[in-house]
Amino acid sequence: MVTLLEVTDITASVGEVCCAPLVREPIGQAEADKLAVTLKALADPARLRLLSIVASSEGQEACVCDLIAPVGLSQPTVSHHLKVLTEAGFLSRSKRGTWAYYRLAPDALTGVADFLTI
Amino acid sequence: MVTLLEVTDITASVGEVCCAPLVREPIGQAEADKLAVTLKALADPARLRLLSIVASSEGQEACVCDLIAPVGLSQPTVSHHLKVLTEAGFLSRSKRGTWAYYRLAPDALTGVADFLTI
Repeated sequence: MVTLLEVTDITASVGEVCCAPLVREPIGQAEADKLAVTLKALADPARLRLLSIVASSEGQEACVCDLIAPVGLSQPTVSHHLKVLTEAGFLSRSKRGTWAYYRLAPDALTGVADFLTI
Repeated sequence: MVTLLEVTDITASVGEVCCAPLVREPIGQAEADKLAVTLKALADPARLRLLSIVASSEGQEACVCDLIAPVGLSQPTVSHHLKVLTEAGFLSRSKRGTWAYYRLAPDALTGVADFLTI
């Protein structure tokens, strides 16, 4: 009588250790909902351009008065987009005199990038 | 006669060398349009969950037949979301027998993450 021994190659199942939450295991509904809201705030050409202008400005801060001309949109439209970016955590807002100033809040951007990094 | 020499502190204008396109300089309209389309494909809870299930599967590949139950959506809805992810470059599709298989195309995800990494 022959006894068959099943040999499992455990190294094959160890796989690569991976850091990105999206790749490590299936994300849950709550996490997917939260990430989708954040990505939606970014997923607009005007908002990406505004965020990029602020992020590349000196001190990563810009006056709303300097953001209107470069994107070629009306002041209310620019203000709406800046509000969406601020509510999503990508910018912080402070008022000095007549104007509002927007500063990059880099943690939000880093958070999204880390989530997607494989 | 006194000659005034203007001394420019060049170190002040050198700034930090930075890698993220979004932070290095204001992105242009064409680049913003392209990135927004890619981010829109990601910015949906069902698509994030589907992408995450595929990405965390063995070989980063999954049969469409194994993707329907976990997200609790109809087969046509799941197929639509998979099509959006495939067209955006996040997944590749191959047909084997009756079923379609989806595999993670990691470059697209890395591309978005690199763009946003500060």
